[in-house]
Parts: sequence; structure tokens; C-alpha cells
Amino acid sequence: MSVNELEQLRMKLDNVNLQILELVNLRAAIVQQIGQLKNKQGMKKFDPVREREMLNHLIQHNNGPFENSTIEHIFKEIFKAGLELIEDDDKKELLV
Amino acid sequence: MSVNELEQLRMKLDNVNLQILELVNLRAAIVQQIGQLKNKQGMKKFDPVREREMLNHLIQHNNGPFENSTIEHIFKEIFKAGLELIEDDDKKELLV
Repeated sequence: MSVNELEQLRMKLDNVNLQILELVNLRAAIVQQIGQLKNKQGMKKFDPVREREMLNHLIQHNNGPFENSTIEHIFKEIFKAGLELIEDDDKKELLV
Repeated sequence: MSVNELEQLRMKLDNVNLQILELVNLRAAIVQQIGQLKNKQGMKKFDPVREREMLNHLIQHNNGPFENSTIEHIFKEIFKAGLELIEDDDKKELLV
């Protein structure tokens, strides 16, 4: 039955969505830790060289179906969100 | 040693990046299967109600550190990329 087939694929998708959610938040938590460490050492938060390295690493490991350009686009959004998160953390710290 | 600590966190991050990459591509492959099924059934590809349901489901399960609005933003980009992928598949099929 095709409806069942669609339902099954949607359930798979929901499951993968939740796994991505968990990893994206785990990533954000690691970025926060890195932000705190960089604060201690007076290091800049945004490191374009490191960001480019991460993107290249991802593209090397990209087996599709997404094109490299799509992978870059999605990860740039994830990186940006991570950077905004630690900038917010810094602002909160200043207000304490 | 702080440098080692930073290196360790970066290795963790690289590892999580690769896991996200794998899941994002797995998601794309499932979306392609759904697209093919919808083609057979003459169903529309973009279903805003289903997209909203997926976002609500994700927000219900979001334990941070990312805010719900950030999770929505990231996933909307992932959804959009999936939709573009199956639209490209359709175009290729028309050209065959």
C-alpha cells in the first residue's frame, strides 16, 4: 500500500530529524565550551581559516545526494548560529 | 594544557560535523524516495502543513542550547535544500 509506504518514509524522516536536532545541539554545546576557553585565552571567536578547514573537511567526506554547494550552505548556517550563540553568552556575562 | 583542550574540543566538533553530514544526506535520500512516490501518485511535493508539523515536532523535542527560533531557521534551510533536490531530480527526468 502506497499510503503506508509514504507513512513509513515520513516516520523515517521524523526519526532522522530528531537525530539531526540532537547533534546540532550537541555541536552548539561544544561551540559554547570552545567559546569559554577562547574567552579565558583572549582569543577571537570567529576564525575564518578554521571555518574554511571544517567546510573543506565536510566536502571531502560528502557522498551526496546533496551537492557540495548545498552542504556548504547548510553548514554555514549552522556555524553562524553557533557563533551567534556564543556572542549571546558573552553579552549575558557582561550583564551579570 | 589549554591548547590540547582546544584541540580536543575541535576534534569532537569535527566528529559531530561528520555525523551531521551523514544524517543530512540520509535525510536527503529519504526525501528523494518520498519525491518519487509522490510523483507516482501525482501528489504535490511541497506540503506546508507537513513542514509545520515537522517543525513543531522538533521544537517540542528541543532541549537547547539552541533557541527554538534557531532550530526552526536551520531546519527550514535543510527542508528547502531537500525540496530543491527533488525539483532538480524532476527536471533531470524530464530531460531524459
